[in-house]
Amino acid sequence: MNIVVIVIGDELLIGQVIDTNSGWIARHVNPLGWNVKYVKVVSDDSEEIIKAIDDALSQVDLVLTTGGLGPTKDDITKAALCRYFGGELVYDKDVEKNVLEVVEKRHLKINPLTAAQAYVPSSCKVIQNRVGTAPIMWFEKNGKVLVSMPGVPFETEQMMEREVIPQLVKHFCTNEHIEHRTFIVIDYCESALAMKLEQFEAEMPPYIHLAYLPRPGIIRLRLTGHLADKSQLETDMNMLSDKLRDLLGDSIISYEDKPIAAILGDMLKRYDYLLSTAESCTGGDIAHEITEIPGSSEYFTGSVVSYSNDVKSSVLGVGQNELKEYGAVSREVVEQMCNGVSKLLNTQCAIATSGIAGPTGGTADKPVGTVWICAGCNGKLVSEKYHFPGTRDRVIDRASMTGMIMLIKLLRDLKA
Amino acid sequence: MNIVVIVIGDELLIGQVIDTNSGWIARHVNPLGWNVKYVKVVSDDSEEIIKAIDDALSQVDLVLTTGGLGPTKDDITKAALCRYFGGELVYDKDVEKNVLEVVEKRHLKINPLTAAQAYVPSSCKVIQNRVGTAPIMWFEKNGKVLVSMPGVPFETEQMMEREVIPQLVKHFCTNEHIEHRTFIVIDYCESALAMKLEQFEAEMPPYIHLAYLPRPGIIRLRLTGHLADKSQLETDMNMLSDKLRDLLGDSIISYEDKPIAAILGDMLKRYDYLLSTAESCTGGDIAHEITEIPGSSEYFTGSVVSYSNDVKSSVLGVGQNELKEYGAVSREVVEQMCNGVSKLLNTQCAIATSGIAGPTGGTADKPVGTVWICAGCNGKLVSEKYHFPGTRDRVIDRASMTGMIMLIKLLRDLKA
Repeated sequence: MNIVVIVIGDELLIGQVIDTNSGWIARHVNPLGWNVKYVKVVSDDSEEIIKAIDDALSQVDLVLTTGGLGPTKDDITKAALCRYFGGELVYDKDVEKNVLEVVEKRHLKINPLTAAQAYVPSSCKVIQNRVGTAPIMWFEKNGKVLVSMPGVPFETEQMMEREVIPQLVKHFCTNEHIEHRTFIVIDYCESALAMKLEQFEAEMPPYIHLAYLPRPGIIRLRLTGHLADKSQLETDMNMLSDKLRDLLGDSIISYEDKPIAAILGDMLKRYDYLLSTAESCTGGDIAHEITEIPGSSEYFTGSVVSYSNDVKSSVLGVGQNELKEYGAVSREVVEQMCNGVSKLLNTQCAIATSGIAGPTGGTADKPVGTVWICAGCNGKLVSEKYHFPGTRDRVIDRASMTGMIMLIKLLRDLKA
Repeated sequence: MNIVVIVIGDELLIGQVIDTNSGWIARHVNPLGWNVKYVKVVSDDSEEIIKAIDDALSQVDLVLTTGGLGPTKDDITKAALCRYFGGELVYDKDVEKNVLEVVEKRHLKINPLTAAQAYVPSSCKVIQNRVGTAPIMWFEKNGKVLVSMPGVPFETEQMMEREVIPQLVKHFCTNEHIEHRTFIVIDYCESALAMKLEQFEAEMPPYIHLAYLPRPGIIRLRLTGHLADKSQLETDMNMLSDKLRDLLGDSIISYEDKPIAAILGDMLKRYDYLLSTAESCTGGDIAHEITEIPGSSEYFTGSVVSYSNDVKSSVLGVGQNELKEYGAVSREVVEQMCNGVSKLLNTQCAIATSGIAGPTGGTADKPVGTVWICAGCNGKLVSEKYHFPGTRDRVIDRASMTGMIMLIKLLRDLKA
């Protein structure tokens, strides 16, 4: 089944907020065999909202909308829905009760604007929003369904999982199966990988597609198959996975779509190693990426963000001579940082970074984007100088990803 | 002028990649007085692409597309553009030259897939992509313009700024002015703020709108005005800004849209204070947020991410007794972390966090989401226990934002 997602909100069309709801929805309806045909982002404007809904319902059986609700702007979207689906705005006692409960849990007081959320179109069935005050509204017209949900990602995600998806599954039944497999590949650039897989692609069945999704330092390969016969599809996908494994060997560092930090964490757990980081230009971003992974306290003891040279020498024991002679952005310093943090935080493995993230601070010799990175394991160090293009946040992101990939490669090679 | 942004790519519709291009485009065309009417995200499918283009060009004079190009998939989008705008795919020597230059700069070798990027529709004018291999294509039809750009955000951003926007400005001339003003507000929840501003909103001229954009711990208020008379619009916007200043006082912590970390950085620079952080549950996220801001090395010396209790006591000097008696997630420990890191890294100000980000590790007494945060300045400490709802990354994000806002409030109150 095809679905359309409509995202409502002026804040999205002026670029102050990024839509993450449509992606979340896609990831959670795909396993049901449902495809997002398109996503349309429209403004808080009655005509635009109605046009988008009408267009979408003319093409698909299910439309999900997010946003355009909330205490300060729900009048436009609710009125538009009322106009399109009929009925009038009525005061719903159950919604009022839910709003009061949610407000009380947050230790806030009810006020007239929050209370106004209890008005809903009489043409909808309400699904109580247990984690927010904007009600979720389920409309039906000519056998088609539209569900209107809040714009706050946390609320939409929680309520989709708890209530909306289960009710949609009950309502629609689906025959076609969709399966995705994702492989995280290192050692190749996109076009080299595409050449390596040219024959593999040519031999794929027509109902299976291969996509290349490059990210800094890695390429995510994604196989997607659509077929009514679920077991046939699974057999095919397994066969193609095995083929990819034969072709790419240990350049595939994961057979699931997961963050680099999680792949590194799996390796550290497997080998029973502890990790620490000593970060200058990445400023704590590697530690942050690593600790975003649940359970990372099993293998991550901590980090020293040594942003100033004083901290590099006083806390991490980097020599004053090395700092003077080679500068903070050098092989010598980054290797001492790596050894220093392993010793201080008592870990087998460490990653250290020192570089010039920009936009200022570059020199002819060491332009903005120059980053020295060191990965170490039990005294074995690998260090490398990089020149990352782009803005400050891009340089930081690339350096963090590269540091983690360097340690993944070092662990792979040491254990090969 | 209204424009439409079409974002092309299967990876977006299955939720593996988030579209940041449309937001970037909006933020950069708004100051020209151009409005993004809607954004449509479509798959790598010829029919869908053509339908989206045709729809968009029937409503607006300018359409910008991103994505659907690149060495492994440019055939579909280019063929669709060729079908829609006429002509045929021709080999363009200048594009080939540019591709060779870009590939050489990256120290890579050219291969047939990269070389194929030199094929472009004969109906377009090419804008050379100086930072990537996919050419940018400018089409015209019945006085309307479509520009096709790559999906890689860095390439689209760089080339929009350098080439595409200047050429569009030359091509179109615009009369209506748009102005935005953003105010970052603390101390209020959304509905309380809306009530406080009820009369203010009622008195606004009809061509100016007020939007509430809540984020964890803050609300961004955005005034947007559209008017042909630029100086009238500016006068009005200034008058409304002054009124908001009178109404909200120092609950407005910034008169520009900037990250919390940048607002904190401005205050630290103003008072000539240095900052360090001691992070347990936030795992380096505060340091990362702070060092994302250019020039943060002026006021940020570093951080100790003390993820394990050993590091809390050995590096930060937290007492074993306190750890045993109160546990790591306690007022006593977070205050000792705050003092410890200020001393170790020699700073006037510090932020410390210790909590249970989840999904496991919670107890009846200290459930997942419990976080103790301390902000300190010259020996004056404020500490607070929070219960943040939601998933691990949300707890981390909320704790980081809250820590920075606590220090902003402390500095504001100390200097009041």
